[in-house]
Amino acid sequence: MHSGHGVVLPGHRFVLSAADTMKLDNGTVFGPFQLAYQTYGELNSDKSNAILVCHALTGDQYVAEDHPVTGKPGWWGEMVGAGKPIDTDRFFIICINVLGGCMGSTGPQNIDPKTRKPYGLNFPVISIADMVRAQVLVIDHLGIDQLFCVTGGSMGAMQVLEWASRYKDRVFAAMPIAGAARHTAQNIAFHEVGRQAILADPDWHGGDYARHGAIPRRGLGVARMTAHITYLSEPALHRKFGRNLQDRSAVSYGFDADFQVESYLRHQGISFVERFDANSYLYITRAMDYFDLAAEYDGSLAAAFDGVKTRFCIISFSSDWLFPTSENRAIVHALNAVAADVSFVEVESDQGHDAFLLDEPEFRRVAKGFINSCAEHRGLR
Amino acid sequence: MHSGHGVVLPGHRFVLSAADTMKLDNGTVFGPFQLAYQTYGELNSDKSNAILVCHALTGDQYVAEDHPVTGKPGWWGEMVGAGKPIDTDRFFIICINVLGGCMGSTGPQNIDPKTRKPYGLNFPVISIADMVRAQVLVIDHLGIDQLFCVTGGSMGAMQVLEWASRYKDRVFAAMPIAGAARHTAQNIAFHEVGRQAILADPDWHGGDYARHGAIPRRGLGVARMTAHITYLSEPALHRKFGRNLQDRSAVSYGFDADFQVESYLRHQGISFVERFDANSYLYITRAMDYFDLAAEYDGSLAAAFDGVKTRFCIISFSSDWLFPTSENRAIVHALNAVAADVSFVEVESDQGHDAFLLDEPEFRRVAKGFINSCAEHRGLR
Repeated sequence: MHSGHGVVLPGHRFVLSAADTMKLDNGTVFGPFQLAYQTYGELNSDKSNAILVCHALTGDQYVAEDHPVTGKPGWWGEMVGAGKPIDTDRFFIICINVLGGCMGSTGPQNIDPKTRKPYGLNFPVISIADMVRAQVLVIDHLGIDQLFCVTGGSMGAMQVLEWASRYKDRVFAAMPIAGAARHTAQNIAFHEVGRQAILADPDWHGGDYARHGAIPRRGLGVARMTAHITYLSEPALHRKFGRNLQDRSAVSYGFDADFQVESYLRHQGISFVERFDANSYLYITRAMDYFDLAAEYDGSLAAAFDGVKTRFCIISFSSDWLFPTSENRAIVHALNAVAADVSFVEVESDQGHDAFLLDEPEFRRVAKGFINSCAEHRGLR
Repeated sequence: MHSGHGVVLPGHRFVLSAADTMKLDNGTVFGPFQLAYQTYGELNSDKSNAILVCHALTGDQYVAEDHPVTGKPGWWGEMVGAGKPIDTDRFFIICINVLGGCMGSTGPQNIDPKTRKPYGLNFPVISIADMVRAQVLVIDHLGIDQLFCVTGGSMGAMQVLEWASRYKDRVFAAMPIAGAARHTAQNIAFHEVGRQAILADPDWHGGDYARHGAIPRRGLGVARMTAHITYLSEPALHRKFGRNLQDRSAVSYGFDADFQVESYLRHQGISFVERFDANSYLYITRAMDYFDLAAEYDGSLAAAFDGVKTRFCIISFSSDWLFPTSENRAIVHALNAVAADVSFVEVESDQGHDAFLLDEPEFRRVAKGFINSCAEHRGLR
C-alpha cells in the first residue's frame, strides 16, 4: 500500500519520501509527502531496541542534538543520551517531525504539487491519528515490526496513546507523559485564543503570507506568549520572577517590560517566531483539539485499549494544570478496566506542564526504572 | 485642596468635575478631570449608611441597573438591590467609574485639555491608589465622612484594601472579595499577553486610533478572550461546554468554531469591543500589575493595616485560580498580625474567579451576614 525511500541528508538528517498517498481522518487522500526524522544510537540485529519519541506541539525531531535553526541543545537532553533514561548506548531512538510540522516533514509551508504553490490553508486538517499513521510509514521503512517503546510528553503523549490503541502488536512498552486522552475545554480555549491572535495579524494574509513575503510575527508571538504561561505554574513563575523588576529599581509608569516576567514572555514570543511556522501552529493545535481517543471507540476509553499487551507507565506532574493528574489518571482507570499492565506516577514538581522537559530527578528515575524493567522483560541488555 | 461640582445627567447619571488637580503616584499632576458615578438607595440623615462598591477591570458604575451601552442588567444584580445583601432599601450605594475608565470618568479616550486631542498614550499611567484618591473626591463631595462599607471583587478588592489602609478613619467595614494585596507574576503575565495583542493590532495606531477613525477590535478581542479563560475554572468550562460541538454533529476539519467553547469565547471577544476602550484596557491592567500594597509599606503587608479599626470580611472562591485563596489568606494573616477584626470565608464554588459576579448562595449568605452584623454595630436599622 505504501512505498517510500529514505534519504540521508548532511548531518544525519533523514527524510522518508512517501511516494504513495494516505487516507486522512478528514476523508481526503493526501500525498505524496515527506517525513523528516532523526535517529540516535544503533538498531540491534533483531530490531528489538527501537524507541520512538513523539514530540510535542512546538517540538521537532532534534531530540538530543543541537537544533539546526536555534543552535540550542536538543529539547530532551535531560532524558535522551548516553547513560540517560532513554540510553543511546543501548537503544535506537527515532523521532519524526509530525505531519503538518515545519522542520522537514510536509506541512502547510511546503509546495502543494497540485498548485505548485505553498499549501497554506489548502493543507488538510490533520489529526493525531494521521500523524501516527504517517509515523508508521517510517517505522515500516526502517523494518521495525515492534517498537520496544513509544514515549513522549504533552501532544507526544497523545501520539503514544494513539499508537498503543491502534497498533497494539507494534508497541512493547508505552510511556505517555503529562498527557491526556482528550483535549479539555480549557485547553481548546487557550488554543483558540492563539489561533485568533494569528488570524488577526494582517501579515497572516489568509494563510498566504509566504506569497506576500510576510510573516505574522505579532500574532504568532502573542499565541506563543499565551501558551507559554500555560506551560508553567504559578509557583514556578513566582519563584523565578515574582514581581522582580527588569533592569530597573522602580516601575517606569509606562508600558515597557517593567517586570522580569514580561521581558521573559516577550522573549519567548520573539524567539518562537524565528523557528516556527504560523500555519503549522494552526494545524497542530487543531489536531490536539480534535483528539478524543474515547470518541474513536464509541465513548469508551477502556475499549480503546481492549486486548492490549503493552506495558504502560503513565506519568503526570503535580503542578501541571494544562494536562493535570486527573486527565492522566483517567487513562490509568481505562487501562485498569482492561487489566492492562500499567503503573502510574504523579511526580511532585512545581514546574508545571513543562516539567517533562526540565531537570526533574524523580521523573528521570521513574522513566529509567520503567524502561530498564521493560528492557529486561524484552530480553534486551 | 480639591473643589468640584456635581452634575446630574439624564437617567440619574452623576458626574463630578474635579476643577482642581491631583498628584498621581507617577509624580505628575493631573487634572482637571471628571468622575462618573451612580447611586442607589437613599443616604440617611447622618450619612452613615453609604456603601462604596468598587468595580473590577472591565466593570463600571452600572451596578444594579441596565447598562446604557449593552442594555444588559447591572453587573452585580446578584448582590445589590432591594432585599439583596447590599440592600438598596437600607443603604446608599455608590459606584464610581475608575479614573482611566471609559464610561464617563476621564480616561485615555477623553480630550486632553492641553492638546485638545484625545489623551491616548499621553494619559498618565495610574495606580490603584490613584483610582482611590479620585474616589475620595466623590465621597467628599457627597459629604460622607465615613463610609459604612467599602466592597468589591477582583480589582475592586484591591481598591477596598487601598481604602482600608490609607483612609483608616473613613471605612467602618471592608469586604474585599476574590482579591489580592499584590498582582502575581502569573497575573502580570496574562495581562501582558492581552496588552501585546492590543499593541500588535495595526488599528491601534500607537494608541491614536481615534484620530484614524479605527478601533483595534481584533487585538482587544484576543485580549478579552485570554482574560476570560482566566476568569473561569476548568471544571466550569468542562461542565458548561466540555467538548460539545456548536450547531454541528461532527467536527468540520477546519478552523471554524467547531466547539461550543470556541464560539462562546469569540462572542466574548466581539461583544467586549462594543463596550470597552482598548487604551483604557491597557491603563487599567497596568494599574493592577503595579498594585503591591506591602511595597507601599516597606514590604510589610501588616504595616499597611497598622492601627486599623475597620471590620473586615475577606472572601475567596475555592476554584478561583487567578486570585486564589492563598492570596486572600495572606491578607487575613496581615490583618491578624495587627489584631484587626477580620473574618475569612473560602466559598466552595466551581465557577472560578467570576464566581463573585454569579449566583452563589453561600457567598450571598456570607456577605449578607457580615453587612447586617456590621450595620448592627454601626447602629443602622
